[in-house]
Parts: sequence; structure tokens; C-alpha cells
Amino acid sequence: MLIPLLKSIKLFSRKGRKFYRFINSITGIRPGNTDLYYQAMVHKSAEKRFSKNKSFNNERLEYLGDAILGAVVAQELYLLFPHEDEGFLTKTRSRIVSRSNLNQIALEMGLQQWIQFHPPGDISQTHILGDALEAIIGAIFLDKGYGSSRRFIRDRILTKYLDLKEIVENDTNYKSLLIEWGQKNKCPVQFITEEYKGKEEKNTVFIARAVINNKISGLGKGYSKKEAEQNAANEALENVQSDSLS
Amino acid sequence: MLIPLLKSIKLFSRKGRKFYRFINSITGIRPGNTDLYYQAMVHKSAEKRFSKNKSFNNERLEYLGDAILGAVVAQELYLLFPHEDEGFLTKTRSRIVSRSNLNQIALEMGLQQWIQFHPPGDISQTHILGDALEAIIGAIFLDKGYGSSRRFIRDRILTKYLDLKEIVENDTNYKSLLIEWGQKNKCPVQFITEEYKGKEEKNTVFIARAVINNKISGLGKGYSKKEAEQNAANEALENVQSDSLS
Repeated sequence: MLIPLLKSIKLFSRKGRKFYRFINSITGIRPGNTDLYYQAMVHKSAEKRFSKNKSFNNERLEYLGDAILGAVVAQELYLLFPHEDEGFLTKTRSRIVSRSNLNQIALEMGLQQWIQFHPPGDISQTHILGDALEAIIGAIFLDKGYGSSRRFIRDRILTKYLDLKEIVENDTNYKSLLIEWGQKNKCPVQFITEEYKGKEEKNTVFIARAVINNKISGLGKGYSKKEAEQNAANEALENVQSDSLS
Repeated sequence: MLIPLLKSIKLFSRKGRKFYRFINSITGIRPGNTDLYYQAMVHKSAEKRFSKNKSFNNERLEYLGDAILGAVVAQELYLLFPHEDEGFLTKTRSRIVSRSNLNQIALEMGLQQWIQFHPPGDISQTHILGDALEAIIGAIFLDKGYGSSRRFIRDRILTKYLDLKEIVENDTNYKSLLIEWGQKNKCPVQFITEEYKGKEEKNTVFIARAVINNKISGLGKGYSKKEAEQNAANEALENVQSDSLS
């Protein structure tokens, strides 16, 4: 069923060869199953449907890549910081795999040249980019296994695009930034924070909502009111920035 | 620094040999670095502290194991259900790795015989068990790599303890169950559900809070009000059950 669709991307076509070289240049990998990488570039808006249950887009690969990215980043941080506790590792991991980081990295890699989406428009800084990057990780994992995925993430993402020292030391005050944004854009910003009886038995957990124009724009969890609000503000900032750019 | 602590568990001691056989029997693996598995059994409440930055408990291993478990279950579901979409895979995965499932599996494996915690008491059905199981996955991953972790999770957890068909078809009405629980225990249960402007651009997302005695006991996200409330009720049920048993 896939043959007609994929004909255009076959290796013997000019476009196919160009795509192969592109994937090779950004991943350092010689693709075995090129179709997987091609599929990673198809956003749901441009999907091809074969039947009720069979569609061709990157959502399943993104789901898989997201999980593999989480595991690899967890592993790298575990090894890099042998004396830090679980709280530090979890916080650092979530900063690394943030949507805005993934979108920015995908943009710098040049994925926008190959992503298929509809209707045409500027997708820079949108989640379509970050999702496609995760889908590529899923494709590498299926094509080459965990070790290759790890090398790609470590050498071609973490080392190349991220300043780990800055991420670790980053103490940006997201709450102030969001309030400033609200004042500039004449949108009332409000934080609602409550105690949360979570799964952790000993520690009190807080849940904060950053509410903009009566809609929750960010949700954050934390062991202090401040931490929860920072996390909520961070998510809300990603949302408003993504909205204003799309 | 670890030598005095670990002396008692060394292979040449009777306890050490018994522990080795136990790990071998539940995992099918011949441990290389036994200390890792031993560490996986030390709950934070019984940790040994060597200095400000160096403590010996299972939290870091649990953090790592949680990520590896997520990746392996994502992979297995991806392969098992080639025609299901990302939403189905995500939902099924979160049902599989639920705290109550992990606690129950750890109990059936007999981890409680080896977990160190303080003060002594009945830990059956508490998160201490599930956390230790995740820490064992972390230990296997560091000791033997991704492939061995995958085999352990697939053959000794998913296949052995879980009825995947039941999990997939499970349409338990958690909201009704929680309301019943509230009536039985004379605790007012309330649901507060709001629209959420999440990262997904196209779909409206809902956030529900299950509030018991004015504290949030469960938080749920969903593409419909109903789905969000079901997820919140499910988490709240896990919490109240865990509380009443601990």
C-alpha cells in the first residue's frame, strides 16, 4: 500500500538521495529503512489515509521518540551528576526536553525544509518542529536500536545545541516574565495555587495554574508554592510565545 | 566508602547468596554488580548518609528505572498495536505503569522481604514497593543494558502479571467509584473541571481536580471533560486506597 506514496522518495530519485543525505548529515546515521525517516516528516495535517485504521503520519513515531528521549536524557544526567539527587535530575531533564528547546533545535537542524504539513505557512517555533524531531528519534530507534538513538541524542542534540551548565544554573524568574508579558499585552495574568495530596506521602505538593484571560495557560507542580508557580509560568510563557508566532 | 555498609550483603555471606538467588529468580538475570540491586532495595527512610552530597538509597535508581520502563512499555505497545494511534498507545501505557499496578506486581514478586525502610510496618500496597521495582529496573539497566531491561519488563512483568486485553478494554467508571467511596467514608468529593489552553494547538484540553475534604486528591487531563474527570478520579482512588492501607 505504501509503494505509490513512497515512490517519490525512493533512493533512486533525486529528492530521495537528497533526503538520505540530509538525514545522514543531521544524525550521523546511514538510514536502513528510509521510509521511517520519511514518515517522521509527515505532520498529521498532511497525513495520507489508506483505510479507517491505517494512516501515514508521524504521531506514533513521535510517541515512541518522546519515550526514548526521556530515557536517554535520564541516563545521561544520571551518569553526569553522580552526586545529585532525584529531584535535581528530574528538574534538569524536564528543562532539557522542554517544548521550546526541542522546537528551537529542530529549527536549527533545518527540519522545516522537509516537514510536510497543511496548510502551508511558517512553522518556525511551533510544536510541529519539536514533534518531528521526536519522531526522528523514534525512527532511529526502530531502525538502529537504543545505542544509536543514545549517540544521536547525546552527540547531536545535547552536546551540540544545549548549554548544560546554563540549564542547570538557570534561575529565570518565569513568573515575573509572564506578569511583564501580561502588562505589555494588556492581558490580566493570575496565579491560583493549591495544596495537592499527591502520590508522595511525606511531602506537601502544590499545583499552580497560570490563568490568562480566564483560561488556564500553564499548569505547574512543585514542592513549594514558588516552584509550582514558576513551572506554571514557564509553561504559560511557552504557550503565549508559540501562539504569537504561529 | 561503601565497603563497610555492603559487607553484610557480599556474595560470600549467607544473606548475600540468598539475595543473589532472589534477584536471579525474579529477573532471570545473573547480577554483575550486586551492589546496584542492593541499593535498589534501600528506601530513603532507611538511607545511609556518607556526607552532605552522598547518600545511599534507591531514589536515583528509581528515577532512571521509571524512564526505562516508560521507554520499554512505549516500544512494546508500538509493536503490539501497529494500527492504533498515539492517543490509544499513550492511554494504555499510563494504565500499565500506574502506581497501583507497580505496587501490586512488586508485592507478588516478594520485594517486601528485602526492602529496607523505617520505621518498620506494613508496606504492602504502598508506593515504596512500586518505587523499589522501578529501582530494580534502573539497576538492571546500569548492570546489563537496555536489552536486558527490556526482556525483564516484557517477560517478567508485562507477560507474567498483566492482562493486556483487560487493560485495553478496561472502561471502569472511576468517577462513580470515587463518589461511592466518598459516601461510604463520609468525605465530600467534588470535581472542578476547567478548560486548559495546553500545548496542543488544535484541541481543547480539560483539567479536572478531584477534591476530597478540600484537598486536591487527583489531577486529570483529557480531551473531554469526562476523560479529564475519569483520570482525576483514578488518581484520587489510588491515593485514598494507598492511604487507607498504609
